[in-house]
Amino acid sequence: MTGQKKQRIGVGIIGFGTVGTGVVKILTNRAEEIRRRLGVPLELVRIADLDLKRDRGVAVKPGVLISKADELINDPDVDIVVELVGGYEPARTFILKAIEKGKCVVTANKALLAVHGEELYRAAQKAGMDLGFEASVGGGIPIIRAMKEGLAANKILSIYGIINGTANYILSKMTEEKRPFAEVLTEAQRLGYAEADPRFDVEGIDSAHKLAILVTLAFGTPVEIKSIYTEGITGVTPTDIEYAKEFGYRIKLLAIAKSNDDQIEVRVHPTMVPDEYLIATVNGIYNAIYVVGDAVGNTLFYGQGAGAMPTGSAVVSDVMEAGRNLLYDSVGCVPPTGFDPDQRELLRIKPMEEIRSFYYLRFMALDKPGVLSRISGVLGKYNISISSMIQKGRKIGEAVPVVMMTHKAVERDVQQALAEINRFPDVSEKTVLIRVEGEEEE
Amino acid sequence: MTGQKKQRIGVGIIGFGTVGTGVVKILTNRAEEIRRRLGVPLELVRIADLDLKRDRGVAVKPGVLISKADELINDPDVDIVVELVGGYEPARTFILKAIEKGKCVVTANKALLAVHGEELYRAAQKAGMDLGFEASVGGGIPIIRAMKEGLAANKILSIYGIINGTANYILSKMTEEKRPFAEVLTEAQRLGYAEADPRFDVEGIDSAHKLAILVTLAFGTPVEIKSIYTEGITGVTPTDIEYAKEFGYRIKLLAIAKSNDDQIEVRVHPTMVPDEYLIATVNGIYNAIYVVGDAVGNTLFYGQGAGAMPTGSAVVSDVMEAGRNLLYDSVGCVPPTGFDPDQRELLRIKPMEEIRSFYYLRFMALDKPGVLSRISGVLGKYNISISSMIQKGRKIGEAVPVVMMTHKAVERDVQQALAEINRFPDVSEKTVLIRVEGEEEE
Repeated sequence: MTGQKKQRIGVGIIGFGTVGTGVVKILTNRAEEIRRRLGVPLELVRIADLDLKRDRGVAVKPGVLISKADELINDPDVDIVVELVGGYEPARTFILKAIEKGKCVVTANKALLAVHGEELYRAAQKAGMDLGFEASVGGGIPIIRAMKEGLAANKILSIYGIINGTANYILSKMTEEKRPFAEVLTEAQRLGYAEADPRFDVEGIDSAHKLAILVTLAFGTPVEIKSIYTEGITGVTPTDIEYAKEFGYRIKLLAIAKSNDDQIEVRVHPTMVPDEYLIATVNGIYNAIYVVGDAVGNTLFYGQGAGAMPTGSAVVSDVMEAGRNLLYDSVGCVPPTGFDPDQRELLRIKPMEEIRSFYYLRFMALDKPGVLSRISGVLGKYNISISSMIQKGRKIGEAVPVVMMTHKAVERDVQQALAEINRFPDVSEKTVLIRVEGEEEE
Repeated sequence: MTGQKKQRIGVGIIGFGTVGTGVVKILTNRAEEIRRRLGVPLELVRIADLDLKRDRGVAVKPGVLISKADELINDPDVDIVVELVGGYEPARTFILKAIEKGKCVVTANKALLAVHGEELYRAAQKAGMDLGFEASVGGGIPIIRAMKEGLAANKILSIYGIINGTANYILSKMTEEKRPFAEVLTEAQRLGYAEADPRFDVEGIDSAHKLAILVTLAFGTPVEIKSIYTEGITGVTPTDIEYAKEFGYRIKLLAIAKSNDDQIEVRVHPTMVPDEYLIATVNGIYNAIYVVGDAVGNTLFYGQGAGAMPTGSAVVSDVMEAGRNLLYDSVGCVPPTGFDPDQRELLRIKPMEEIRSFYYLRFMALDKPGVLSRISGVLGKYNISISSMIQKGRKIGEAVPVVMMTHKAVERDVQQALAEINRFPDVSEKTVLIRVEGEEEE
């Protein structure tokens, strides 16, 4: 604590879209409460957006809304720059310029952090400025603070995240209403729960971006986004959801990270989760992150992963923290990744083919003698043992589903076995594979 | 950031019991990881405990363990004092002395904070020192940080906490195994899940202490512990648990706070929670805090509420935060309650008789004509309307349970109605009342 305490903290927001509007609403409606917490007001000095006309349903003082982001960044009254433009550019350049100008930065931009995070973390650390990104994962859930500070005394053993609300909404609807993916997606788009271009959400890319951020915070390692195995929900069918139920599982799009000796597993894919797991009960647009630490044990953080107000809640929490640090001359006190910049280490991400998991396999096999035995034979050859099996509906000479749950097996073995089996003339479709979480029964 | 950065942070622990041992284990086993986060090591300089002999199963350097807490507090190498003695005195004096000596303090002592918190918060603020108490509520769950920082942009609308693991364990066992309270308590004591003197836990006092802390952080108000209506689980019976199930509810010991215009409701009592609520599925020794904010919406924080390692995880997270603040000369940057000390306001706690709730009422009434009509008549007189009713087992002339669920009613009306009804000669036992959470069906 040095020098004279500021009498106000100036905030500038770049991007007056959905989240920007939420942030403005909170800064306006909660101004008094925020002042009670900080001791001084947070003042909304500038908003920059190309669209100066649109009515966002929130009152802004005359002169606040401008069109040039650079003008906002250069404004000496702006202490904290909030980047809500999204995408890679010009968001990246805005953030780098703001840091260079000695501003604290708050962003909700997970795609940017996942891809250019290292550059941004370094820039902020070098300048000694705060870079807050609580809103980048899990919307309003304060999971970033939990990873950086609340659970910082733990060796993180594993993370299981439902961190894409759109995908979770679609899977939940498919499960409840036994409807196919394409139909539910169309409905979700109509209701505004899915974007016109839904690929980021349904192909797991958004989840992979968020997982990269969580892994960086949990393990103190940079993560290359392309090293994350990413599989979306477009191939999930009502048939497999029904079989999952019979075995006592739900299918969720999980972002998974596991500490594995001196390596980490980092992957996103549809996953069968035992019914009785808390995370299996997280439905609709909600997000949840299940974190296991060596000291704390099992924890879960749950809330709305998107939307103007939940995301705004996280953005403003970061603005308040940066504001406090500005007031107390302690900006940069918590480094962006939670690790001392000189102490981060590059951990090896285990290649996908080396992971061990339980598997759900659905073969479409001709119902005739010997087929099952040949399938089992190949599985056995690759050290894959079956824990249970369902074969329903006998139709001699036609293809019927044969569903198997395996004991723990190695991904490479399973892929090789399936490649062989899929070539069988008696196997009529590509075998469905879904990885399964749970405990080994022994 | 001023002056020369410290090369190490010295930690002193007063109280080498269960949690103390957990903290020492974490500081020892995670030393390297902690150094990677802070940039400098946390060094365990002193432990003070009256028992210098007992083997805690953890190695401590010679000379570290001493018997005099004052010696630890006065040691210039101790930067952070961790109070794990428990109880009111000498814990309170230790903390005040440490603050006076210019030390940061970390404590897990919820009873002390609930009763003497204001004095301690003021002392820390006046001295500009950190006072961390993440471990005081919810064990390893980082709920204190969430309330002070993560959700700080919100007006908190309500809090529902399962924040006593012993009570939750007992209620879960009673529910799963249909066994009476006393029997399950004895078993819990044998297994170490309940203390020899279980009153703090089963009478709701511990939950009230923790709720007082949460309310202080959520609403920026001091809370007098005696203004919290507190009812434990000693009166919960397997009969009522079974009826709850029939109506689609679980009985949980909930710590509840609600914002109510310019007042707050703050209370602890057994509560019927709809089956489908996430918090209804929190069983055994686990804790969960469900927080509703105006911006963030519904959130849930889940984890182990007690135990050496989960509690130790929270203690060490506070030690690390204080350590960082010491390194960056930003101690006191976040005030203990999350509110600027000059900006706190005393909010009125709504008297219990003014609250509105749904109620579960179980009458033991003689099975003869007219009794039910007289009970309903009294309820009607007090503006209590019934949403559903179960009467099971007909035994003419004998007392049978008549169970009713009410629409929202005022506590005072319900208490007065029950006082009248309990005086009926045809009502053989004191009527059971359990408050019910849920949404009004209309």
